Amino acid sequence: MAIVPEGMIADILTREASFDAVEKVFAAMAAGDAYNFPVVREAIGHEDALYGFKGGFDRAGGVLGLKAGGYWPHNLERRGIINHQSTVFLFDPDTGRVKAMVGGNYLTALRTAAASSVSIRHLARKDAKVLGMIGAGHQAKFQLRAAADTHRFEKVIGWNMHPEMLPGLAEVAEEIGLPFEAVDLPGMAEADVIITITSSFAPTLLAEHVSPGTHLACMGTDTKGKQEVEAALLGRATVFCDEVAQSVSIGEAQHAVAAGLIAEGDITQIGAVINGTHAGRTSADEITLFDGTGVGLQDLAVAASIVETALAQGTATVVPL
Amino acid sequence: MAIVPEGMIADILTREASFDAVEKVFAAMAAGDAYNFPVVREAIGHEDALYGFKGGFDRAGGVLGLKAGGYWPHNLERRGIINHQSTVFLFDPDTGRVKAMVGGNYLTALRTAAASSVSIRHLARKDAKVLGMIGAGHQAKFQLRAAADTHRFEKVIGWNMHPEMLPGLAEVAEEIGLPFEAVDLPGMAEADVIITITSSFAPTLLAEHVSPGTHLACMGTDTKGKQEVEAALLGRATVFCDEVAQSVSIGEAQHAVAAGLIAEGDITQIGAVINGTHAGRTSADEITLFDGTGVGLQDLAVAASIVETALAQGTATVVPL
Repeated sequence: MAIVPEGMIADILTREASFDAVEKVFAAMAAGDAYNFPVVREAIGHEDALYGFKGGFDRAGGVLGLKAGGYWPHNLERRGIINHQSTVFLFDPDTGRVKAMVGGNYLTALRTAAASSVSIRHLARKDAKVLGMIGAGHQAKFQLRAAADTHRFEKVIGWNMHPEMLPGLAEVAEEIGLPFEAVDLPGMAEADVIITITSSFAPTLLAEHVSPGTHLACMGTDTKGKQEVEAALLGRATVFCDEVAQSVSIGEAQHAVAAGLIAEGDITQIGAVINGTHAGRTSADEITLFDGTGVGLQDLAVAASIVETALAQGTATVVPL
Repeated sequence: MAIVPEGMIADILTREASFDAVEKVFAAMAAGDAYNFPVVREAIGHEDALYGFKGGFDRAGGVLGLKAGGYWPHNLERRGIINHQSTVFLFDPDTGRVKAMVGGNYLTALRTAAASSVSIRHLARKDAKVLGMIGAGHQAKFQLRAAADTHRFEKVIGWNMHPEMLPGLAEVAEEIGLPFEAVDLPGMAEADVIITITSSFAPTLLAEHVSPGTHLACMGTDTKGKQEVEAALLGRATVFCDEVAQSVSIGEAQHAVAAGLIAEGDITQIGAVINGTHAGRTSADEITLFDGTGVGLQDLAVAASIVETALAQGTATVVPL
C-alpha cells in the first residue's frame, strides 16, 4: 500500500489538481456513477471531540474508501496541533484490500476551496468582477486563492464578524495581485460572486445585501443548526449543491426547506450543470447559490489524485502488506 | 504510525490475547465505558461486494477507530485471495491522529472465536463434557480451537449441512486431542455446549434438539434474515449477547423478538456477567444462549493488543507522519 503522510501533501497537491478531481467527481455523482455512504459522526465523550467517517464509492473513477477523523477542539491550545484531524483510506474496489493512506488535513482545505471554485466556474457570470468574502479565518484564505485561480476578478471585498481578522485576508488578496476593501454587509451588494465561509449559527448575509446576478457559494454550513445566509435568499435564488440529501439536512438549504421557501426538488446537484443536463445560470439577473456541505467523495477523489502523483514521483512510502 | 500487515498477524496474535481483549472490551461495553458507532454497510454495485465500517470507542482502554472492509464474493475464484477482506485503523483519542493500521482478516476470525469462548467461560456449566458444533467451515475450526482452550471438554460432536466437510473439523479435534463424532441434529441432545457457526437463513437446530443445562453460542447470524436456531429456543433460554441493539436487529434474537417470544429487555449483555452485575447461569438445568453478532469494538480491542505486541517485539513497521 502507498502512504502519503500529512507533511508531504502540501508539496504534492496543487489547487489545479484539487479542482479537477472535485469537478470530475461532482459530475460522476450527478451521473449516478458515484455515491456517498451514510455519514457517521459521534461526540465520543472525550476531549469534546467529534469523530466519524465519510465514505463513498466512485465507480467511474474506481475509487473506494473513507475519510476518518474529526474535530478535537483542544488540540491547538493543549498540544499545538490543529483541531481538525483526518486521514483518508483508499481501498481496491476489485478486491476490498486497502490500497493507500493519505493525510487528510491540507487535503480537506483544498477540496473545500475547490468546491466553491467549481461552482464559480459553472454558475458565476463570465463578466463577474468583484469577489465578496464573508469570513476571514484559515479556510477563507484557501477559498480566496482557489476562486482567483478560477476566475479573473478585479477586486476583493470582505466582511468578518471580527474585523481585526480582515488584514489576514487582505494580505492574501495582495499576494494574488487584487485590491482588497473591507465593507459592511450592505456593501456586499457590489459583489458579483460571494463566498461565505464562517461557522455561524445565525444568518449574517441578508437577501437585501445581494444584488441580482450574483453567484453565492455558501461553504460554512455543514451541521444541523448552522446558518450563514437568510433563508429568503434561497427562495430568490436558483439553488445548487454538492449532494441534495446533505444540503437539506445539514447544509444551508435546511432552513429554507424547513420554512417552506424551497422544496428538496428545487435543488440541483452541481454535477448536472457540469454534465450539461442542467442549464445552470440562464440569465444575467439570476441569483445562483451553491450550498457546499462537503462530501466524502471529494476527499476520496483528491486523495486518489495525490496517491497517483506521489507514486509517479516516487515520493509515496510503499509498505508491502 | 505503526503498521502490522495481514501477513504478520498470525505470528503475533494468540488465541489467549484475543480472548483477553474481547473479554475486557465486553466488560467495558456493559459498564458504559465503551460503545460501538452505527454500522455502515453498503452493497457498492461492483463485484457484488459488501463494504462498510464498524467503528467504536473504548474510553477505558483508550482505543478509538474502525474496521473497514467487507465481503468480495468472487475474490477466491477470480483472484485466489480470500473473500472477507478488512483492515483496522486505530486513532489517538487525545488528538484524532491516526495511530496504527492492522490487517483485519485473521484478526476477525480470532475475535469471533474469542467471543464464543468468553461466553463459554462465563455461562457454560463447569462440568460440561461434550461440545457440539453446528457448521464445519473455515470459521468453525477457529471456534473449536478457542472453545477447547477455554474449557476442558471430553468429546466433540458435529453436524453440518454438507457432511463431507466434517472430516476437516474432526482433524482439528484430533489435533487438540479430543474424540470427534458426526451426529444427526437430534444427536445434539448429548452436547453440554453448542456452537452454531453457519450462514443459514432458516433454523437448523430446533428447541427439541437441545438438552436442559446446555449453553449455546450462536455465532453465525449477523444480518437481517439469517437464522441458525429455532426462535422457540430463545424463548426457553436465558439470552445474552455482545450488543443488544445488534442482537435484536441483525442477530439470532431478531426472530424471537419479532415473534414476541422474548423482548429486548430480556437480553443481557455478556459484559454484565463478566462485571458481576448479572448472575449469569443460576441453575444446572438452565439453557443459556449467547447471541454473538460481532461488534467493531472486538476488532479494535484485538487490533490494539496486536499493535502493542508488535511494537514491543519491534516487528511493526513504523512510518513517520
